[in-house]
Amino acid sequence: MLTHAYGFASATSPCRPMDIERRETGPKDVLFDISYCGVCHSDIHTARSEWGPSRYPLVVGHEITGIVREVGSQVTAFKPGDRVGVGCMVDSCGSCEYCAQGLEQFCDKGIFTYNSRDQFGQVTQGGYSQSITVQEHFVFHMPDSLPLAEGAPLLCAGITTYSPLKRWVKPGMKVAVVGLGGLGHVGVQIAAAMGAEVSVISHTMSKQADGLALGASAYYATSEEGTFKRLANQFDMILSTVSSTEDYTSYINALNKTGVMVNVGMPAEPVDVYVRALSPRRTLQGSLIGGCAETQEMLDFCAEHGVRARIETISGDEITEAYDKVVHSQVRYRYVIDASTLGAR
Amino acid sequence: MLTHAYGFASATSPCRPMDIERRETGPKDVLFDISYCGVCHSDIHTARSEWGPSRYPLVVGHEITGIVREVGSQVTAFKPGDRVGVGCMVDSCGSCEYCAQGLEQFCDKGIFTYNSRDQFGQVTQGGYSQSITVQEHFVFHMPDSLPLAEGAPLLCAGITTYSPLKRWVKPGMKVAVVGLGGLGHVGVQIAAAMGAEVSVISHTMSKQADGLALGASAYYATSEEGTFKRLANQFDMILSTVSSTEDYTSYINALNKTGVMVNVGMPAEPVDVYVRALSPRRTLQGSLIGGCAETQEMLDFCAEHGVRARIETISGDEITEAYDKVVHSQVRYRYVIDASTLGAR
Repeated sequence: MLTHAYGFASATSPCRPMDIERRETGPKDVLFDISYCGVCHSDIHTARSEWGPSRYPLVVGHEITGIVREVGSQVTAFKPGDRVGVGCMVDSCGSCEYCAQGLEQFCDKGIFTYNSRDQFGQVTQGGYSQSITVQEHFVFHMPDSLPLAEGAPLLCAGITTYSPLKRWVKPGMKVAVVGLGGLGHVGVQIAAAMGAEVSVISHTMSKQADGLALGASAYYATSEEGTFKRLANQFDMILSTVSSTEDYTSYINALNKTGVMVNVGMPAEPVDVYVRALSPRRTLQGSLIGGCAETQEMLDFCAEHGVRARIETISGDEITEAYDKVVHSQVRYRYVIDASTLGAR
Repeated sequence: MLTHAYGFASATSPCRPMDIERRETGPKDVLFDISYCGVCHSDIHTARSEWGPSRYPLVVGHEITGIVREVGSQVTAFKPGDRVGVGCMVDSCGSCEYCAQGLEQFCDKGIFTYNSRDQFGQVTQGGYSQSITVQEHFVFHMPDSLPLAEGAPLLCAGITTYSPLKRWVKPGMKVAVVGLGGLGHVGVQIAAAMGAEVSVISHTMSKQADGLALGASAYYATSEEGTFKRLANQFDMILSTVSSTEDYTSYINALNKTGVMVNVGMPAEPVDVYVRALSPRRTLQGSLIGGCAETQEMLDFCAEHGVRARIETISGDEITEAYDKVVHSQVRYRYVIDASTLGAR
């Protein structure tokens, strides 16, 4: 079955219309018509082969929402007409130590939503398209109160920040979110909804008003002299959403003596860490999206607490330009593609 | 009240006999006759002013065991004749957020057993001496089955390894202890007693027989080619007891996807960490001794499970030579000073 999409012919191509094949709906599959798909920085890295050579032609996108068209004979949780979402994963082995714990994102046989080779031997193609077929376990219910456009980015940016915040935050904790971009602007809302006292640490003060509107009670700029001195020993948790490798030890020193810094950015280079700054009992942790059950939990949490991505809706023809703006941090705060625009030929 | 001791006149002095003053036994104080004091590498760093200028004349030593001679009028937990121990701390504020959680080691007003200035304005003097006066809260019961000589090093090396192991280890976990020295040889025993499957990772295979005898089931040498490749993704936890800054990313990559590496060594220089190796959900954590309640818990655990330091007993006159052997990793595995030898003049 063919579906209209926008994709890349090579690492240097613009994002252009292409038609791609979707498999027939298997017994455990859900086929849905895509309404919206968020633009994640990972899409750009992959489309441009910046994380190693990608498989072209390639359609990216892993913040996907839509309406169910058809379900397989063994599907029990979804029916035609349901509002649904799909995130970064579409398959895993289902039986390893990680899958058994609901940590499908760590499964060695995990299949990502795009640029992976699936169990049928096909390269997976993502959500910059008009329909997608995904097995039930990796499809989520979008709560009624969560708009499909503002909710789409939660499938990646939401779970990426929710998972570490859920792991560590208790009400009243002092939490700093580093970077107010696609991830950070959702993380601030989630941390505030969890009852934390939230600070934003950004390079400049330019987004201060937004940060406070999103739920932060304080805003700091690292470009201003004395900021790190002022922040020493202040935070129970720091959630870093940036890829910068600078100032790691300064951030660690901004933790209190039992504080934790979780990094969800992707620094390409090794980072100089003064390991003694981790004493007394500071923690530096990585984190990668979240499992299926946790993703549904996150969507329900965001619906309940009014957490939404702040988005700019774009058409298929605007994707290439949008990528440049994302790279230059000019988006406020997430581009979301209106899938109805992807059919034009 | 004067007590015989061995101490340092300056950063370059040998360890020589000196008499030091102990305060009168206050209402909450315990005065005890010291039986043994372990030689910790921290003693050497401090005696030689390697961690900043120390306060001379100085008596070091914070792995102290002995027999109570006298208790203050308000002391309820100890009586003359009791077998007791003192570790790295002798005071804290008792009311801050850390003290309230039993984490006295993180109190900003914490006073260490030596080279700190106490609430009376005196420089604290450690356990290379024949008696010491310490307030009750920082004195521990040495269980009857725990020898005072083999038990002394537990007051620092024991709690330093017990605290992180207690925090993370569950029975059946795969735990690697990096370095088989004063800390590591106790850590291996504690991890094994907690039900972990323990590996030792050392620079060479020279201590393999000892490592296995202490409870490890596997032993690896980083000097052998291919070791890190073989160990990739293997461990639930790595407890690093070494100060080396090499191979950090290799150790992190030896963790499984949700594994934790706790560092209790003290690398002097910043470490190159490839932060992306912490993704998916790996953790790098510092740790510093443990609180008072946890120290007593550790002593009881070691008594119950037969955990003992492997020691070589020395006299006061042998301390200077012993220091050189510790620096060159020639001790198997902890020197313990027999305090009865400190009175000779």
